[in-house]
Amino acid sequence: MVVCEVLRIGHRPERDKRITTHVALTARAFGASKIYISNPDSRVINSVDEVVSKFGGDFKIFPTSNPKKIVKDSKLRIVHLTMFGLPIDEKLGEIKKGKTDILFIVGAEKVPPWVFELADYNISIGNQPHSEVAALAIAMNKLHPEGYNTKFQGKLSVLPSATHREMIESH
Amino acid sequence: MVVCEVLRIGHRPERDKRITTHVALTARAFGASKIYISNPDSRVINSVDEVVSKFGGDFKIFPTSNPKKIVKDSKLRIVHLTMFGLPIDEKLGEIKKGKTDILFIVGAEKVPPWVFELADYNISIGNQPHSEVAALAIAMNKLHPEGYNTKFQGKLSVLPSATHREMIESH
Repeated sequence: MVVCEVLRIGHRPERDKRITTHVALTARAFGASKIYISNPDSRVINSVDEVVSKFGGDFKIFPTSNPKKIVKDSKLRIVHLTMFGLPIDEKLGEIKKGKTDILFIVGAEKVPPWVFELADYNISIGNQPHSEVAALAIAMNKLHPEGYNTKFQGKLSVLPSATHREMIESH
Repeated sequence: MVVCEVLRIGHRPERDKRITTHVALTARAFGASKIYISNPDSRVINSVDEVVSKFGGDFKIFPTSNPKKIVKDSKLRIVHLTMFGLPIDEKLGEIKKGKTDILFIVGAEKVPPWVFELADYNISIGNQPHSEVAALAIAMNKLHPEGYNTKFQGKLSVLPSATHREMIESH
């Protein structure tokens, strides 16, 4: 199975703290192995590490100040999710055929031109403005349709219920 | 085709401005007709109205201070998206068979118990903590697999590209 990593680029600590946290938690819950955050933000890292320590798994979050180097040094296929890209359903077959793991790039409001240039694929989930969180969820879901059912061995786990909120704590 | 509306509940203006905006833009881009925001926040409303005025469509955003009344008065099937709910893939067939339109509820950090009680379905997209934006995108995508390709007639539209950012402006 193709493994995914995520690079979150253009994070603005004063505006994007919660969106970037949602990007990271979505990456984890949908089966990615790690996320790089550019620019670094210790509050986001702490929030994500706290979820990992409670709910389990070995998802890693790395700060970076040089996202371009990460992309250039990566041996993975680079899939940049952008409302300006080609429709995912046109390219999905080709992307699924590849055996190399995937590095998804998701930007904040406007990414620098090198992201488009270095990406192997610039891919849209529809061409309307919406959300990098939604785009990442859909793209990962198309690669791994039940990725969000990945099991984690954590101190806390949810007991799914039709009617109420219930968690199990293991000691 | 079943039409969707969305109710965003528990919005905290000081923390959730951008997440709630992403929820609303995802709702629009994936084919919902309207969103209710509780609590009201004129900055979110202005951001969403600006996207609608540029990119088209007739998506509506309504502030509300009484989300419980909206749910009680609604004739729609109420689908609450929560990490504590039953797995969507267990309930999807049943939900798709229904002919009544759907009101999705997405909460911020913790929703009041009445949301679980008044919902026809409490549904999870996996049982890990991630994002209400991701949950809404996946749930809407499962109901309408190409909903994100909905066409809008706007002043601005994207020309999908493998390599760069390009928009067309119609006058």
